[in-house]
Formats: sequence, C-alpha cells, structure tokens
Amino acid sequence: MSDDRRPTLATVAARAAVSRQTVSNALNAPHLVHPETLERVLGAVAELGYRPHGAARQLRTRRSGVVGLRLEPTADGISGAVLDRFLHSVTEQAQLRGYRVMLFTAADDDAEIDQYGELVDVLGVDAFVLTSTHHGDPRTRWLSASDVPFVTFGRPWATTSADDRDPADVADHAWVDVDGAVGTRAAVEHLLDLGHRRIAFIGWPSGSDVGDDRRRGWERAMRAAGATGDEELDRLSISVVDGVGTGVLAAERLLSRAQPTAFVCASDSLALGALSASRTLAAAASGDQPAVVGFDDTPVARAVGLSSVAQPLTEAAGRAFELLLAQLTDQHRAGGEPADRAVLLNPRLVVRDSSAHRRPPT
Amino acid sequence: MSDDRRPTLATVAARAAVSRQTVSNALNAPHLVHPETLERVLGAVAELGYRPHGAARQLRTRRSGVVGLRLEPTADGISGAVLDRFLHSVTEQAQLRGYRVMLFTAADDDAEIDQYGELVDVLGVDAFVLTSTHHGDPRTRWLSASDVPFVTFGRPWATTSADDRDPADVADHAWVDVDGAVGTRAAVEHLLDLGHRRIAFIGWPSGSDVGDDRRRGWERAMRAAGATGDEELDRLSISVVDGVGTGVLAAERLLSRAQPTAFVCASDSLALGALSASRTLAAAASGDQPAVVGFDDTPVARAVGLSSVAQPLTEAAGRAFELLLAQLTDQHRAGGEPADRAVLLNPRLVVRDSSAHRRPPT
Repeated sequence: MSDDRRPTLATVAARAAVSRQTVSNALNAPHLVHPETLERVLGAVAELGYRPHGAARQLRTRRSGVVGLRLEPTADGISGAVLDRFLHSVTEQAQLRGYRVMLFTAADDDAEIDQYGELVDVLGVDAFVLTSTHHGDPRTRWLSASDVPFVTFGRPWATTSADDRDPADVADHAWVDVDGAVGTRAAVEHLLDLGHRRIAFIGWPSGSDVGDDRRRGWERAMRAAGATGDEELDRLSISVVDGVGTGVLAAERLLSRAQPTAFVCASDSLALGALSASRTLAAAASGDQPAVVGFDDTPVARAVGLSSVAQPLTEAAGRAFELLLAQLTDQHRAGGEPADRAVLLNPRLVVRDSSAHRRPPT
Repeated sequence: MSDDRRPTLATVAARAAVSRQTVSNALNAPHLVHPETLERVLGAVAELGYRPHGAARQLRTRRSGVVGLRLEPTADGISGAVLDRFLHSVTEQAQLRGYRVMLFTAADDDAEIDQYGELVDVLGVDAFVLTSTHHGDPRTRWLSASDVPFVTFGRPWATTSADDRDPADVADHAWVDVDGAVGTRAAVEHLLDLGHRRIAFIGWPSGSDVGDDRRRGWERAMRAAGATGDEELDRLSISVVDGVGTGVLAAERLLSRAQPTAFVCASDSLALGALSASRTLAAAASGDQPAVVGFDDTPVARAVGLSSVAQPLTEAAGRAFELLLAQLTDQHRAGGEPADRAVLLNPRLVVRDSSAHRRPPT
C-alpha cells in the first residue's frame, strides 16, 4: 500500500488551525505555546497519528537509530563479495530491529577514525560495525576510549595465540567471527575421506591473521592424519598473494615438486587458479584431475562447481547486531561477562564437483 | 591522524563554565539564554571550533545530507555484483560531495514506498537513488507526487519506444542509464570482425525492459550484417530465465538447431553456461570452440577469461549524484531543460580469451 496520506507537520498545522512553527514548538518547546493551543495541537497530532520528525526525536533521545559501516574498496571482486554479502545481512538484521545502516568510505584506519568523529558528532550515529580487523587495530582502541558502542566482524587478533582458543580470554570488546581453521580442517578431512593423502595448501603470505588461521586448520588436520615432518608440510604448502593468476602458478609449482592429489586454498580466487592448473594437468597427462576446495563460497564457486567453505554470514550479522543492542540498551558495555561479548561461529563445507569424486586406491 | 581532541558539547560547556544544557540552548534556543552567557558560550564555540550536533543542524537547515538507497536482495550473486559495485560508487561519489548513503531493504515496490515515508519523516533523508526501475514503476510516481528529490539508475522505460532514443522525450524525472543495445551491438560487431557469421543470442524472456534492450542491439547488428529474415533471427536466439544452468541448456539447444559459432548473452551467468556447453562440444567433436561474450563484466567474467560488456558504474554514480545535487541545491526540480535530467552512457566491450581468436575462413 502507498503512503500518500501519511500526516505531515503541515497537515497537523491545518487540522489545528495554527502555523507549522507552532506545531514544531508544541512538540519541541511546549513551554513556548499557550496551553489551550498546545492542547489543540497535541490533539491533532494524536488524531492524525503524526510522528514527529527524526531530528527532533534525536535531540530528545540522543539516539539516531543509525549504525555506521565502512564500505571496503573491493580488491579483486571475488573475495570482496563476502563483505558485500555481510553488508546485505547487516542491513536486513538492523532493519528487523528498527535500525538503519549508514555507509562511509575511508582509505585507511586513520581516515576511518576521522570519519567516526564526524559521523558521531555531526550525524549522530549511535554505533559502528567494523570489518577487516587486524593485529593491533587502532580503530577499536579509539572507539573504546571514546565510549562509542561497536562490534567487530573479526576477532581481536592481537590477543589470540595459536593455541589459545577460549573466546572469554580475548573479549576486550564485542566481536563475532568465523573459525577459519575449523573450515580448512573440515576441507582436509573431507579429502581424506575420499582417499586423498597428499593434500596441499595454497595460502597467503604469513602475517595475515585470517590467512594464518586458515593455514593452521590444514596443518593440524594433516598432522592428525600422520603428516609428521615439518619438511613434508613445507613441501606441501605455498604462500602467494591472493588472485587467480597466482593460484595457477602456485598449483603448478606444487604439482611439480610434491605431486599433490588435492588442494585446499585460502580463497576461492586461489582455488579457481588451482582448478585451472589441475584441468590443464589432467588434460595433458590424461590422469586424474586433482581435487580442489576453496574458501568463502563466493558466487564464482557456485558458478563453476567449486567446493568451498561457507561462512554463516546471516548468523554472523544477526549475532553482531545482538551484541550492539546489548550495548545500546543497557549498561552492558563496560561490564558484563566477557564471554557474552565474543561469538565464534563454525563455517560449513559445501561440496561440489571439484572435489566430489572418490580417489581410486593407489 | 586521530580525532581524540575533537571538541564536544562537554568541552564547550567546561570552557564557558556553564552546563551542557546551556550550551545546547545557546545553539538551538538562544532567546532562552542570558545575553552575557550567550556571548561567552558562542565565544567558546568559536574558539574550540565546535561543530553543533547534526540533529540540531538538521532542524535548522531541513537538510540531513543523507541519501537513501534500497539494497536489492542478491538473486544469483553473479548479476547482483553489478548493483553492489554501483552501491560502492554511489557511496564514494556521495562522500566526495559531503553526503552519506543510508541503506534500507524492502520486499517489493509498495514496501519500498512505505520505507520512503519513514525515511523522510522520521530520519530526515533528503533524497533517494533508485535502482532496478521497470515499466510502470510506482516508486517514481510516489516520489514525484511527494516532491522528494530522486534519481534513478535505469531509464523510465514506460515512455521509451524501440526507435525513440531521444533522452529529452523521456525525462519526466532525473535518470542515468547505460545503453544495453549499444553493448550487445558492439559484441556482435567484434564477433563479425573475427569472421563469425552465425552469432546466436541467449536472452531473458521478453517483457524485461533491460533484457529486451540487450536483445535489440544484437538483432540490429545482425540485420545490418545481412541477417534479413525473422525466421533466421528466431532460430538464432532463445529466451531463458537467468542462470548458469539455463545458459548451458540454451546453448546446447542452439548448437543443435542452428550451429552457431558464437554466442552473445544478456548476462555473465548465461554466458558462463554457454562457455561450459561450448567447451564440452569442442572437447567431444575436437572442433573449434564457439566464442562467447557475456554482459556486465562481473568478477566471474574476469576470473574465467570471459569477454563481457562493462557498464561504466563509477561514471553512472557520479552523474546520478550531480543530478541529485541539482535538485537539492536549487529549484531545478520542476523546471530546467528535460535533456539535462537524462544521461544515457555507453558501455564498453572487454575482450578476453572466450572470444579472442579469429575464426578460420569457412
């Protein structure tokens, strides 16, 4: 249904036979309005179901109902799709709870911090959702110090050691994250079940928290399956910058030096490259095509039949919003149990043609 | 640099040795404040460079500096990437001009119209950017009738006939669009240059304005190249719902009934299907692999080497914002030359491996 008859300040003024300024005064500075007039105006407001303008409400409540989120520049368009899908989910989850999402862009962390000040002071933004957190992130420090509610999609990596996985210990602010190591581990176990043993890993250069986490899951699963030597693990893994072309080169190098029968990759971009190299190999040698598993279950993976690890983005957005609301609606921010402010979700392996076939015993 | 020292209402109050309420009154209801106090507070405001809170500014200027944009649910994740990239561009172009983008979701046009009322009345949104316009769109009628500034990414199809391409005639509101027919025509001409003659088209069911436009470009280029009969054009074209799987089936059917040597497709999803069918055919018959051109230059196209027609999304977002600003900053909305409110941009063909090779003469 359309909203043509939604009452405005003007229709209230007409009904009460006063000026628009008088209606505005009645709502925002009632002491300026004669009591009889005030009664007539408020009667018209109630009768017509008029909702006062947000700005006036905002001055009274000090709440805008608006959450800020920085749009990341999309790097290759494949991995960027994950953050775009998270944005869709955050917007839907916010709206379900009566909030809106305001976007902004910033070239780096410092520029993002400058934006926070502007968004809070000038536009009255209530809270922020942060993405792409990293080691020593200055943004969370600034927001904590400024007492601005926020939640991060991504854990506070600085305090997460490889073997310390208790969320309660790392909850110096509210965060939601997906356990990448669980995802790559599930990929390796799926490939082991199919009969693969030489399972290679194509990842990012070490120092990227997310990338190190994804490599860790592969390494642990391989050790659990009997790959004992560091040398063997080094031979079966390689680090390259993200991309399809680098994925091709990485897969070719691994195929020639370690003859893997399967690849687990830190991203769908790398996996797409590995898939292409695997097809070329199978066509040339008419041998079995190596299996490939990617990460993030992007549209590309669905389109080309690539198995991939899917992040539960709708759930992540919903949980992030719950953590924000807890801060916005009570004094939960400073206090509360740390464990209540940290949510680590498990991803889910989606199996497609690229890794669906059982290996013949060798 | 960080913003730790940005002045707030509290620092102004401390400097002027008054309460925060007095500072607020000095800014928003100066008649309530003693003249000497007022002078001291405004002196502190100027000295500290304090910017009053957006909500107060908003009440005075009736401008929030916020533009609303509806997030579309992503259908298959491939075509949806185009609107996500447009969103990135709109956010960047808005911010360059001192505006912000507020997101919302809606299940259909009527729900979107309901949201307009809420966003304007309650949140003070200044203007809207609309996407996915269509024949008889009720949203533009509502916004025009409500005198809310807006611009559409997509032309007002209702008044565009096949042969009437003068933008001045169809500018009953401000719009920016990309000429899809120019894109598919460029794809056909590229394939003709390579020696192809039997160039098929895989499109969407007729009735979709964008889809009909893309088919039109193929048809005109084919007629210009000597494909005279309607029967021949019918045999060389097919309509299916968008998707990779439907693209495979459509290409197989066309290959068996018309032996095309090339495909022009209305989307990258369909083109990806045609590419897969073409590879299968070439592998089975060890003949030449048909050439394929998609539409929208999505990340999938870049990843798999698919030629595709690229929309100039950054330029479209920038031009859309200029059209909005013209409405927000002067009385341009009702008056002005219609041609100034309509912008039709040309897309650009990006050639990749899927159509890069010259045909041998047949």
